[in-house]
Amino acid sequence: MATGMIACNLAFLGFGNVGQALARLLLRKRGELQTRYDLAFTVTGIATGRHGVAIDPHGIDLERALAILLAGDSLDELSALPGISAPENFIASCGASVMFECTPVNYTTGQPAVTYLRDALEHGMHAVSANKGPVVHAYRELTALAQARGLKYYFESAVMDGAPVFSLFRETLPAVYLRGFSGILNSTTNLILTLMEAGESFAQAVAYAQSIGIAETDPSGDIDGWDAAVKVAALATVLMDVPLKPQEVERTGIRGITPLELDRARQAGKRWKLVCTARREGEHVIGRVAPEMVGVDSPLYGVGGTSSVVQFETDVLPGLSVVETDPGPETTAYGMLADFLNAVKAK
Amino acid sequence: MATGMIACNLAFLGFGNVGQALARLLLRKRGELQTRYDLAFTVTGIATGRHGVAIDPHGIDLERALAILLAGDSLDELSALPGISAPENFIASCGASVMFECTPVNYTTGQPAVTYLRDALEHGMHAVSANKGPVVHAYRELTALAQARGLKYYFESAVMDGAPVFSLFRETLPAVYLRGFSGILNSTTNLILTLMEAGESFAQAVAYAQSIGIAETDPSGDIDGWDAAVKVAALATVLMDVPLKPQEVERTGIRGITPLELDRARQAGKRWKLVCTARREGEHVIGRVAPEMVGVDSPLYGVGGTSSVVQFETDVLPGLSVVETDPGPETTAYGMLADFLNAVKAK
Repeated sequence: MATGMIACNLAFLGFGNVGQALARLLLRKRGELQTRYDLAFTVTGIATGRHGVAIDPHGIDLERALAILLAGDSLDELSALPGISAPENFIASCGASVMFECTPVNYTTGQPAVTYLRDALEHGMHAVSANKGPVVHAYRELTALAQARGLKYYFESAVMDGAPVFSLFRETLPAVYLRGFSGILNSTTNLILTLMEAGESFAQAVAYAQSIGIAETDPSGDIDGWDAAVKVAALATVLMDVPLKPQEVERTGIRGITPLELDRARQAGKRWKLVCTARREGEHVIGRVAPEMVGVDSPLYGVGGTSSVVQFETDVLPGLSVVETDPGPETTAYGMLADFLNAVKAK
Repeated sequence: MATGMIACNLAFLGFGNVGQALARLLLRKRGELQTRYDLAFTVTGIATGRHGVAIDPHGIDLERALAILLAGDSLDELSALPGISAPENFIASCGASVMFECTPVNYTTGQPAVTYLRDALEHGMHAVSANKGPVVHAYRELTALAQARGLKYYFESAVMDGAPVFSLFRETLPAVYLRGFSGILNSTTNLILTLMEAGESFAQAVAYAQSIGIAETDPSGDIDGWDAAVKVAALATVLMDVPLKPQEVERTGIRGITPLELDRARQAGKRWKLVCTARREGEHVIGRVAPEMVGVDSPLYGVGGTSSVVQFETDVLPGLSVVETDPGPETTAYGMLADFLNAVKAK
């Protein structure tokens, strides 16, 4: 191993679409990480929800793991430590220096992901998470714990997939004071509104969003604005340094937007968008999710389909927006890769 | 001084609108830099173009310097080392650890700023520059020199004022491969086109842009696309790692865009924009600046007035755009402050 080479053991807790996309991205970037960043990695643990658990201190063959899952089989056959299935035992035994946490989101409490991330940090791992729940329910606790251990808790993919938003402020905008923001943060509702503008019914649009895998079987988390509210809370908590719970975000979903409303907006040269905003009021932050009509000169107007946007108002840059166009699982996976590389300072 | 406190001596080479805005920003942020980043600064040198030079190892009173310039007087009276006026002597004598270079741009050679920045680095200073010229004419040389000395050559404000573009890639997007970009990078022409859409003549629009200080007395550098071409070359050189000279960028300005053309575009639901693009072709990058009609669903459509936008196409994020709305001298100044803080790692 060359001088200065960084060697990392990686573990995946949760290995669905995003975890698997991250695995493929790691395989594709393996050579580049070695030559450009002097970084080598070994995957020592993968815990899936329904397809078994593999731990191997000598390294799991990632391509084989992906093939096993594609065939619908169990990863148990790859494990050098069979019999470990509970997440807490997995975390204690996986021998990783970086944990990728991609378990399902829990809007109300952030659990059990909060516990997983705490465990990972306490076992000396950087915690990289795509999960919004822990950000809104345990950001300060997990960040303080990470700091105390000389580790990182990063979660770029929790909002706007892999587009740099948290790292934008953390790494590029020192000494900035964020006054507020507005944006489109939920892909499903934005796609539904775009499809309805093109003439589809609400039910057709929902069915399409489900068919391409971005809306859940029960799409109410998106449609009623919960997902957007969690993202508003996450951005406010981290970037404005004011803890805000999703339940505190004023919230109206898109069920009231009828084809007639969409048509009226079109005739006025406008579009309905599910707009997310946050602004300071004294020491508090007022968060809001609600449908709004926006005109052609709004940075939100042209953001259609599954794309998203956030416009930040700071004390030094009057308006700074980040737009992410046409994201997919690989976009979210990239956010986690970036977190990993930023955490181990391989840049 | 507290443990870990960083003390920096700062010098300004060039002290026009941007330099003075940076000085005011530093004054405004002084307390925050101390409490939040354990960073204290002293300004030990200011060299202006026509209002004298001040050097004082014990620190120049920045508020007094600003007042002197406001009154149209000379900074010479503040100098503890009178008689130093040549920039090379100023650099050698100013005793700074960070040099803010804000001298006028030279599209053709980047000089004399390239020499100033080289001198500053050779005298052990971080070089922070708002100047596009050195980026396109000496990026690799200055970056290698900085690296060899353990210093930084940063230039966030050279493109899109203070919006994070170079630092976005450097600090938040590891292992990304940039395929190409498109955007609106010249404020003056974008403002002129916006005003002409509102019914003003070309001459009226140019006069207005001059009156608010964003267009030069000779506005041809903007109108003929030179400024935009330099920015395309700068982004390609740094972010795509392919040296590209402004002269190699295919370039058409906005003189051919008549009120009739603007009206035709409007009737088609479109707008004319001076569009900057770069794309790879084998090992080369093809850069282009030319007026294009863009539709309402383009991220460029809603970017009017002095605002700017760049959309990046990478191998991992299908489309990532940064939009900067309503910049001013303080925006550019903030980019230099961010470079300074990132260079000394005060974050």
